[in-house]
Amino acid sequence: MSKPIWVLNGPNLNLLGVREPHLYGHASLDEVRERCVARAGALGFAIEFRQTNREGELIDWVQEARLEASALVINPAGYGHTSVALLDALKSLDIPIVECHLSNPSAREAFRHMSYVSLAASGVICGFGPASYELAIEAAHGLISGASKP
Amino acid sequence: MSKPIWVLNGPNLNLLGVREPHLYGHASLDEVRERCVARAGALGFAIEFRQTNREGELIDWVQEARLEASALVINPAGYGHTSVALLDALKSLDIPIVECHLSNPSAREAFRHMSYVSLAASGVICGFGPASYELAIEAAHGLISGASKP
Amino acid sequence: MSKPIWVLNGPNLNLLGVREPHLYGHASLDEVRERCVARAGALGFAIEFRQTNREGELIDWVQEARLEASALVINPAGYGHTSVALLDALKSLDIPIVECHLSNPSAREAFRHMSYVSLAASGVICGFGPASYELAIEAAHGLISGASKP
Amino acid sequence: MSKPIWVLNGPNLNLLGVREPHLYGHASLDEVRERCVARAGALGFAIEFRQTNREGELIDWVQEARLEASALVINPAGYGHTSVALLDALKSLDIPIVECHLSNPSAREAFRHMSYVSLAASGVICGFGPASYELAIEAAHGLISGASKP
Amino acid sequence: MSKPIWVLNGPNLNLLGVREPHLYGHASLDEVRERCVARAGALGFAIEFRQTNREGELIDWVQEARLEASALVINPAGYGHTSVALLDALKSLDIPIVECHLSNPSAREAFRHMSYVSLAASGVICGFGPASYELAIEAAHGLISGASKP
Amino acid sequence: MSKPIWVLNGPNLNLLGVREPHLYGHASLDEVRERCVARAGALGFAIEFRQTNREGELIDWVQEARLEASALVINPAGYGHTSVALLDALKSLDIPIVECHLSNPSAREAFRHMSYVSLAASGVICGFGPASYELAIEAAHGLISGASKP
Amino acid sequence: MSKPIWVLNGPNLNLLGVREPHLYGHASLDEVRERCVARAGALGFAIEFRQTNREGELIDWVQEARLEASALVINPAGYGHTSVALLDALKSLDIPIVECHLSNPSAREAFRHMSYVSLAASGVICGFGPASYELAIEAAHGLISGASKP
Amino acid sequence: MSKPIWVLNGPNLNLLGVREPHLYGHASLDEVRERCVARAGALGFAIEFRQTNREGELIDWVQEARLEASALVINPAGYGHTSVALLDALKSLDIPIVECHLSNPSAREAFRHMSYVSLAASGVICGFGPASYELAIEAAHGLISGASKP
Amino acid sequence: MSKPIWVLNGPNLNLLGVREPHLYGHASLDEVRERCVARAGALGFAIEFRQTNREGELIDWVQEARLEASALVINPAGYGHTSVALLDALKSLDIPIVECHLSNPSAREAFRHMSYVSLAASGVICGFGPASYELAIEAAHGLISGASKP
Amino acid sequence: MSKPIWVLNGPNLNLLGVREPHLYGHASLDEVRERCVARAGALGFAIEFRQTNREGELIDWVQEARLEASALVINPAGYGHTSVALLDALKSLDIPIVECHLSNPSAREAFRHMSYVSLAASGVICGFGPASYELAIEAAHGLISGASKP
Amino acid sequence: MSKPIWVLNGPNLNLLGVREPHLYGHASLDEVRERCVARAGALGFAIEFRQTNREGELIDWVQEARLEASALVINPAGYGHTSVALLDALKSLDIPIVECHLSNPSAREAFRHMSYVSLAASGVICGFGPASYELAIEAAHGLISGASKP
Amino acid sequence: MSKPIWVLNGPNLNLLGVREPHLYGHASLDEVRERCVARAGALGFAIEFRQTNREGELIDWVQEARLEASALVINPAGYGHTSVALLDALKSLDIPIVECHLSNPSAREAFRHMSYVSLAASGVICGFGPASYELAIEAAHGLISGASKP
Repeated sequence: MSKPIWVLNGPNLNLLGVREPHLYGHASLDEVRERCVARAGALGFAIEFRQTNREGELIDWVQEARLEASALVINPAGYGHTSVALLDALKSLDIPIVECHLSNPSAREAFRHMSYVSLAASGVICGFGPASYELAIEAAHGLISGASKP
Repeated sequence: MSKPIWVLNGPNLNLLGVREPHLYGHASLDEVRERCVARAGALGFAIEFRQTNREGELIDWVQEARLEASALVINPAGYGHTSVALLDALKSLDIPIVECHLSNPSAREAFRHMSYVSLAASGVICGFGPASYELAIEAAHGLISGASKP
Repeated sequence: MSKPIWVLNGPNLNLLGVREPHLYGHASLDEVRERCVARAGALGFAIEFRQTNREGELIDWVQEARLEASALVINPAGYGHTSVALLDALKSLDIPIVECHLSNPSAREAFRHMSYVSLAASGVICGFGPASYELAIEAAHGLISGASKP
Repeated sequence: MSKPIWVLNGPNLNLLGVREPHLYGHASLDEVRERCVARAGALGFAIEFRQTNREGELIDWVQEARLEASALVINPAGYGHTSVALLDALKSLDIPIVECHLSNPSAREAFRHMSYVSLAASGVICGFGPASYELAIEAAHGLISGASKP
Repeated sequence: MSKPIWVLNGPNLNLLGVREPHLYGHASLDEVRERCVARAGALGFAIEFRQTNREGELIDWVQEARLEASALVINPAGYGHTSVALLDALKSLDIPIVECHLSNPSAREAFRHMSYVSLAASGVICGFGPASYELAIEAAHGLISGASKP
Repeated sequence: MSKPIWVLNGPNLNLLGVREPHLYGHASLDEVRERCVARAGALGFAIEFRQTNREGELIDWVQEARLEASALVINPAGYGHTSVALLDALKSLDIPIVECHLSNPSAREAFRHMSYVSLAASGVICGFGPASYELAIEAAHGLISGASKP
Repeated sequence: MSKPIWVLNGPNLNLLGVREPHLYGHASLDEVRERCVARAGALGFAIEFRQTNREGELIDWVQEARLEASALVINPAGYGHTSVALLDALKSLDIPIVECHLSNPSAREAFRHMSYVSLAASGVICGFGPASYELAIEAAHGLISGASKP
Repeated sequence: MSKPIWVLNGPNLNLLGVREPHLYGHASLDEVRERCVARAGALGFAIEFRQTNREGELIDWVQEARLEASALVINPAGYGHTSVALLDALKSLDIPIVECHLSNPSAREAFRHMSYVSLAASGVICGFGPASYELAIEAAHGLISGASKP
Repeated sequence: MSKPIWVLNGPNLNLLGVREPHLYGHASLDEVRERCVARAGALGFAIEFRQTNREGELIDWVQEARLEASALVINPAGYGHTSVALLDALKSLDIPIVECHLSNPSAREAFRHMSYVSLAASGVICGFGPASYELAIEAAHGLISGASKP
Repeated sequence: MSKPIWVLNGPNLNLLGVREPHLYGHASLDEVRERCVARAGALGFAIEFRQTNREGELIDWVQEARLEASALVINPAGYGHTSVALLDALKSLDIPIVECHLSNPSAREAFRHMSYVSLAASGVICGFGPASYELAIEAAHGLISGASKP
Repeated sequence: MSKPIWVLNGPNLNLLGVREPHLYGHASLDEVRERCVARAGALGFAIEFRQTNREGELIDWVQEARLEASALVINPAGYGHTSVALLDALKSLDIPIVECHLSNPSAREAFRHMSYVSLAASGVICGFGPASYELAIEAAHGLISGASKP
Repeated sequence: MSKPIWVLNGPNLNLLGVREPHLYGHASLDEVRERCVARAGALGFAIEFRQTNREGELIDWVQEARLEASALVINPAGYGHTSVALLDALKSLDIPIVECHLSNPSAREAFRHMSYVSLAASGVICGFGPASYELAIEAAHGLISGASKP
């Protein structure tokens, strides 16, 4: 059986639905997880879904995914803009990496335009709220099966 | 009946499959169109699919889409990095706009990191080859139906 | 009899009154044209009034104006910020050139602060909506008649 | 009866006609004043016309204009590029503000390209010598009467 | 009874009194805590006072403060200059936030001039050693009671 | 008897309560002065409270304070961002200097992030409206008495 | 028989001999064409010589040259400094590309120092007026025949 | 007996030998530790060797080393480029600090050229793979014994 | 008889000998004036020596010097780095202008490296304390007599 | 009889054919010299061909060429990017100056994009390997004979 | 027998022990040479040790080392920050290159942070005074013997 | 008897009077030397006057001056803007250093605004043609005798 697709969430995403809903929407992270499970299930995959506010824990999980995951979907939140260490961890992976964001960082403050994670990701999906996750899972699935190749 | 989803392609995409295949893949633009038609059809939408090398013609079409389209999927290619005029055209639309790219511009030269189109787009999908278009159509569909809201 | 004053309009100005009216007002480009004709007529001049979304066509027209116009009033819209080619065309003219804008670019995004057209223009008028055009025609008239000289 | 239109002039404009005539022309500031009085009179307005070399006095006058003027025409000269304090004063006004310059700063040294005054002005007119003032008065009149609205 | 005022301290502040005393003074963090307790007590508030070297733990505490605190006083130390994730956490709070520093960062190295925390804080107090904390508590108290409103 | 604490106010602060109240609040400068007098009185100090729109006059007063004041509280307003001359004057003082602002400049336009005054100040307090002044007086008192030392 | 060498000219070069002759000389574009034909003829090659003011048409021609030309000589004029789309078109060619300019851009305004075309060109020749074209044809010939290899 | 030399390793170094071996070599971190132990033993010192992916834990250990170590050898990996907090921790130490890297960051991406750790280190050794550690221990030994003084 | 040489002093120079003597020395401005009078007298010139803290007054005096002085020696102090208005005033003069400074600004903070006054000055002398003034007078004398011409 | 054309070569060109042949080709500098002699001979000119690794010697030779050469062809190699002194020497020449490079610096590292030599050169030829020299000699010949004038 | 290790020293190092001893220490260059000879001898290598103030001579020596040395240790001093020509010379070598510095440039002025030499060096050692040389020789030895490979 | 004052001249100054006389004047370097000898003689000093085009030779001479000169006057010409090595040499001197220039670099190209030499010089004199040297000698004399101290 295939390994699951891992979906890792960075800082403050545990507050989804509560924090700045005009930017991030009203769905909670639990609802996002359920939509991920449903979408992945339809594609024949299980989901490993985690959230942490700690940069080091996120790096630990990325390293763990190196061996345990078919693909990695990651919403790095604030750490995407500042963490060279996270980039280095991602570069140790041989599986597909899909970066996703609820909002579109390019249309926000200048310090959100740069993403270290993008330097290691196969592709990026942003701006569609929770649907960003569903699309990311579908994209990851395509990369695993070789159907979508740049 | 619903208006179609417009898919507009910028300069040099007519050479797809021929030009720099290590970056853009081996599929031709016709194959991309067919995948778009199939994916949109499954969602109940028709596709209006066009390509041009001319900035002004691209702007004309964006203006046309303002009245004729349910949503706009646009791969602006080189004009995305340089055209304020294209941005201004996009800002006149009230329909969902999804920017898509075959490759991941953030992992390429610095002058490809900035996108004027991103300033007007609801969301961005990049890095999955032709599958970027399929995901963009699904994302556009979600925005039309209100299922995906940031 | 004098040659007419040419009034050239760049991309998206055909949508005037429709696009972002909080920025550009509710008057259509036809209404602007009529105000230009009226103001120029009062000063004894005819108007040649054109709009295009195409950078190359705008350059063609500027070159044409070199021989056919008494003065050039130009609202380059988005191309003003990005087109070295347009600047080069304007530098081939010996007639007065007046740049005009409906809104005040200095009070908008940073990428609208720079204007290549300003490097070739005698003067600039911006921020007064359609009245910017009337003032520009009056200013052009002053430059033709030698009444206003810096 | 309406309040007058105030026309405020910044540093070194008292030397007009004497200082760098290739840039600023041969008319004196008194001649400029007379042209302003004439143009405003034709539009039914009086003029309050002042010049100072002192940044603080210019700020005092801007504050005074807040209550005494129908509109403000201001040529800030060198202080336009350096004075945040002048910007703050202008932002306290509810009347139309028109920035004007004799020459076109965009075609001069880089340190003249930025204008704090532009951040608070309704519109800008520059490059037409003394005629810049006449056009500014006409523009201010349009803004007072509501005829010109961006 | 009111919720307490939370006082959160970032990395290396546990070394206060030991580390670079010419910059940060000779008082220990315990002494700072006591001065905070005394000052808040005089104003009728309890204090929750914590320190951590971990960015993620600081974010956890900020999230906790969202529900448990009347106001937040935060000395982010080194994380203030680098943590977008901390900024995002602070933006989820509806209570007054006061940033405080022992020294005056503006008078130190350039990389200490920017503070992400300042983008979310109601106000900032820096440069007074341990007294910065006392003033911050008083300022927070004023914001809670509505007495000080910008 | 001790010398008074001087409180100097820069340009446009005479319009307090009138100018941009969403930023600066509704209290007038007279009310601010009264709060300063009250707070300082409670600490056993008199207040010398002045406002000017003139950079040079502000510098004169800073020089005067060198001999006449126990401490200086200064809200430089717009001159804080642009005046090297004011910085030089402040550096000639041996008494405590506290910079204060009604709003938080770090959360406003980029040209308000730099403060020359901060380079000479012992500490900075900003963002608390008129309470910024009261806190500044308390902070200055602490510095005079040696109670607060970085 | 060999394919011809294509010589493509960008915007405003149709005005050669008329526009800014102190910079670009007095020869017309027809004269340049004749010199190209003569020089290429002596080397056994035909010339396909075109000019356009339109960026998109230039890109079309570059794509056409991909199949029809032995080598490409291109004077991109203003588009060389601004067109990522033109660069992308050039990168699809497998034939030698020689960039040429009448004047020396490095000795002119800063915005003329960067050339996207240079990123795809085998070599660059600039500053020799019409002779730049003759040298470019000779250089292209050398690259075709393998005689000149970097 | 002397205190040991501490050797601290930042994020992702636990993957040494696995992650990007063309950059970091095939030796594992355990092998590096053994080489450190051997080299230090020959110089009469014990080694305390640790690795963590967590910025805060690294800071804790640096603080611990302040009392427990004779010298500190630190490979900060990705945190060296981004952590002001780590710099602040290092500045609290009075013992020799040697920064070391397996590869030469100056020959890699621009964001790896800046090192906050270098601002506090006595010296830097980089580019020699695991031998960087052995040299760093020897260098630290020299600094402890006073044999090497800049 | 010749017109005098004017020596104008900018802000804070009235505190000479008192303010930061490690930078500016112990001589008072009166002593500087006496040395200027003596040196100029030996060369057959009178001195007009003034100091002000006000930017506008300095500009007034520069304008006055246009008609009344043989040459201008100016120590603009802080205004040299920030005043475009002062530059504009200086550019209206046809007499020799010598900029002088007590200390060497190039060896101090970065914001002291740029001088608007240098853009209009014939020459610059800095770093010699009060002797800078004597050398400046001698240099001005040379320029008046035509003995020193670049 | 005419003076010879001088061909000056900067640092490391003595290693041609040995150093980085993928960039600079396999021909030695002697072979380049022979091709220069042949080409110049065909045009009726002798060649003075030199190479040095010393910046000062290169400047000496440029000064010597001022009197002894008909034209100067110079490949400044690394000194072209860093030497203001070399630029100053070139600006003292009245003869044609042609800069040439074996490779195309615009397609290499950023620090190779700027050339001080280009600021003084009539024209530039780069990217054609040894043929760059032959083309440069032909271009120099054209400038001497007046046949090629920008 | 093996070729010697070359140790090249750039400008001003002949003054070692005399020049700025607080930065560079009290040992003379002769003492450094002796320590190098001793250390290399212990490893079975001879040393070729040279110093020059001339950039061109340094380049000559680097070229000579290409054939005569087993490895190169270079302290480029001031030329390391400015010499592209030195970088080009170093890139022609196939032997190990170790850059060394007495002090730590990263902790000094900004213009010392960039090193062209680092772009070609295998590794860098800095900040340990004369011991930097001994460590560099040991590092070079490791690279020659293949014991240390990044 | 006192040691002489050394006057060192950098590259291209041997062409004085010949090279760009509109910038540097018509006097030859020999005439400058004579004026230096005369002025120094009047002050009781001999002159050692040298010129070189070689950076390394200039550094040698600066080092020589360390022991042989009472003061150093240096016109570094082009090397002043680019040579860190020259700066390092100057910093080894304990005698007064006066930088001088014939023209005023601040009024020329941007790359002439920065001077490494200024970072080590006691003072700077520029813009007075050959008189700059005379003033520099007088200034150096003042520094030697202690009469001019900042």
